[in-house]
Amino acid sequence: MDDDIICAISTPPGVGGIAVARVSGRGAIELVDSVWRGKSLAGATTHSAHYGEIMAPDGDTLDTAVAVVFKGPKSFTGEDTVELSVHGSRYVQRELINVLVQAGCRPAGKGEFTRRAFANGRLDLASAEAVADMIASESKAAHVIAVRQLKGEYSNNIERLRSKIVDLTALLELELDFSEEDVEFASRKSLKESAEEVRGMLESLAGSFKAGNAIKNGVPVAIVGAPNAGKSTLLNALLAEDRALVSPISGTTRDTIEETLDIDGVLFRLIDTAGIRDTADTIEQMGIERALSKVGDASIVVLLIDPTRDEDSDTVAKYIEEKMARDARLITVVNKADLGIEMKGCEHALAISAKTGAGVETLKCALVDAARAGLPDESDMIVTNARHYASIVEALAATGRVIDGLDSGISGDFISQDLREVAHHLGTITGTITTTEILSTVFSRFCIGK
Amino acid sequence: MDDDIICAISTPPGVGGIAVARVSGRGAIELVDSVWRGKSLAGATTHSAHYGEIMAPDGDTLDTAVAVVFKGPKSFTGEDTVELSVHGSRYVQRELINVLVQAGCRPAGKGEFTRRAFANGRLDLASAEAVADMIASESKAAHVIAVRQLKGEYSNNIERLRSKIVDLTALLELELDFSEEDVEFASRKSLKESAEEVRGMLESLAGSFKAGNAIKNGVPVAIVGAPNAGKSTLLNALLAEDRALVSPISGTTRDTIEETLDIDGVLFRLIDTAGIRDTADTIEQMGIERALSKVGDASIVVLLIDPTRDEDSDTVAKYIEEKMARDARLITVVNKADLGIEMKGCEHALAISAKTGAGVETLKCALVDAARAGLPDESDMIVTNARHYASIVEALAATGRVIDGLDSGISGDFISQDLREVAHHLGTITGTITTTEILSTVFSRFCIGK
Repeated sequence: MDDDIICAISTPPGVGGIAVARVSGRGAIELVDSVWRGKSLAGATTHSAHYGEIMAPDGDTLDTAVAVVFKGPKSFTGEDTVELSVHGSRYVQRELINVLVQAGCRPAGKGEFTRRAFANGRLDLASAEAVADMIASESKAAHVIAVRQLKGEYSNNIERLRSKIVDLTALLELELDFSEEDVEFASRKSLKESAEEVRGMLESLAGSFKAGNAIKNGVPVAIVGAPNAGKSTLLNALLAEDRALVSPISGTTRDTIEETLDIDGVLFRLIDTAGIRDTADTIEQMGIERALSKVGDASIVVLLIDPTRDEDSDTVAKYIEEKMARDARLITVVNKADLGIEMKGCEHALAISAKTGAGVETLKCALVDAARAGLPDESDMIVTNARHYASIVEALAATGRVIDGLDSGISGDFISQDLREVAHHLGTITGTITTTEILSTVFSRFCIGK
Repeated sequence: MDDDIICAISTPPGVGGIAVARVSGRGAIELVDSVWRGKSLAGATTHSAHYGEIMAPDGDTLDTAVAVVFKGPKSFTGEDTVELSVHGSRYVQRELINVLVQAGCRPAGKGEFTRRAFANGRLDLASAEAVADMIASESKAAHVIAVRQLKGEYSNNIERLRSKIVDLTALLELELDFSEEDVEFASRKSLKESAEEVRGMLESLAGSFKAGNAIKNGVPVAIVGAPNAGKSTLLNALLAEDRALVSPISGTTRDTIEETLDIDGVLFRLIDTAGIRDTADTIEQMGIERALSKVGDASIVVLLIDPTRDEDSDTVAKYIEEKMARDARLITVVNKADLGIEMKGCEHALAISAKTGAGVETLKCALVDAARAGLPDESDMIVTNARHYASIVEALAATGRVIDGLDSGISGDFISQDLREVAHHLGTITGTITTTEILSTVFSRFCIGK
């Protein structure tokens, strides 16, 4: 357990009706008592709320406050904790931290409360990371994954996999101990079967990462078409309905615009690209290259066709076919439905008018359907965290070496070493195995006050 | 007491470690229970905190939460209240309000919790207004006034003044009842003395408003000088030290720039003006007119002199003398101290170098001294609220009519009517007298959730 007392404003930055400061650590309750005018908090029972005043060092009242006392280990951090609810002015928030620091605590670093909760065994590491994911989640899908991870299901599954590996290792090492007697506790055949089962599970976890990433950061949708097909008008038409949920992401290239949009709880990253056509202009070609690279990254490609310029669309379709990822979905959309032009060969296409908004709702439904088809079941285990993904990839490589080793009949020593490596990488996900570096990486993603 | 249940996020908008929703009204605790998975809150004692889960209508867990139960009348609003502390993501905050509204409460309007506290006699009206002032206060001085007003000292003083008037009126009206008997309960002389005493108090209150306004919105400081004296450089030098506290106020004219700056707990509004000189250019003259009008409004005028262009400064000084308010303070500053030029007649001036920053700290001290000299004592009663000021001005006018009436010996009926008017206007400050219109005006200044 850490020995010092930390404090921070835990509510969002800015001005509001109330703001809450957290103070946690051994002696936190007594520390707050030293700046508290009201009934002694040290004498209070755990989980009780008290009305009083915070005193500034000059003896003046800084603010009236409600203090909620949580006695360790029955608190979020597992330590003695006080939550002080004060008026949410900038001045009060700033001064409250000053008053607490002068009374002897220090401002908390990023995620330090959650770090202590982890250190005190209140949460495993993946659940702690889910706290940050949950706070950042903007859509229902991302939120649901974070809640499940926070509740520990995710870690339990990883731990089960890990203990399977540990059991295999033990069996194999037992055999090594008795190697002179030439007994075989672990049959090579059943060992290989187990390793292959583990590899299958790891592969499906690794495979879920692309989907997990799409849920967390938005399903990438490239809107492509010939120049002036109406791509930007379509982007605006899609965004207009839900403008409140739109946040601009600064483009990585000068020629594509990305906006996120929540439709029915699924977050999309809509990517407006440069118009595609055969051209001799070098600058324009570069824009088209960028557009096509976005097509390659997209999970969904919306091909927007201008029925008045049919031949242009054929060029675009040819390029897209070449670049689109194998598991990506194509939605063909014929724009300018308001003009009433019939098109042959586009019977399966959606007819919309980006200008009048007709058909835009249907397109949204099509986007959600396409996204859901590409996403795993809600009950599946999904990896959303890049750190976990990296560990799973490492574990997968080591599992591959185990299987190869069993095939080529190499010494049990080497196989055991690879098995230990698999267990190690899985252990770093749940925090069974941690290093200062891992912890620093994990908690630097947090906001202060959590 | 209002009959419906209201809810709102009370913490600042945005993403943070935690966010707090308030639910208040008769049945609020039972309402939260209906979406709560955990120990029943209805059975909990007042001022107790409980860990549990918020359920979405589909039965899923929306989030884990801590609920603090406050049973009326021992709550901020005086009603049954639950404060729900959840993870501070946008998604959770939005959905939590959705879940609560579906369970039967409605989103609170601006300041509606405080309005209920007022309606239930937990606060008088001026104290309720102080809640909004306190949340908006950015400097110590503004904060201290709001805290005093919140604690009720201010209202008590106004009420004392008002009951003095009510006593006088009663005495006078008693006399009117017995008018046929020609007794005089209230001696005209002592009545006039009392009225004059009241007028003196009201005048000093009205007089405090300019200072109060300066404390609340910043002491206006006009930085003036000849063109290129270094005014903008000086503004930047003053701001650089405390950039974090700087907020730009969009200029009312195109030619002046305003920035607020907190120095030692005093908030300043620094106004950078166009250079002043005799000119035939019409556009430039307009800018100079604007600069001079800022001089007229300023509590402190900083005259910046360029020692290399002495004669220009004389022109500026002449203009300023004409325009400066009688109670404003002048600080003469000689810039470009780094050039080492001696100036005659400027022995009392501060030498600074806006460029190197030399002397800027001394200027800051001079600003604070000048501001403090112009501000009332901390213990004085200060009017910061424009609504109160308007009421005091009305009360003052009616008091004047009372005194005039006593002088001219008009009928007690008329005097009594004017006295009632004085009492009425003072009553609107503390809320003894309210109308729906007054309440709407007062609470529309609040943020939602307070």
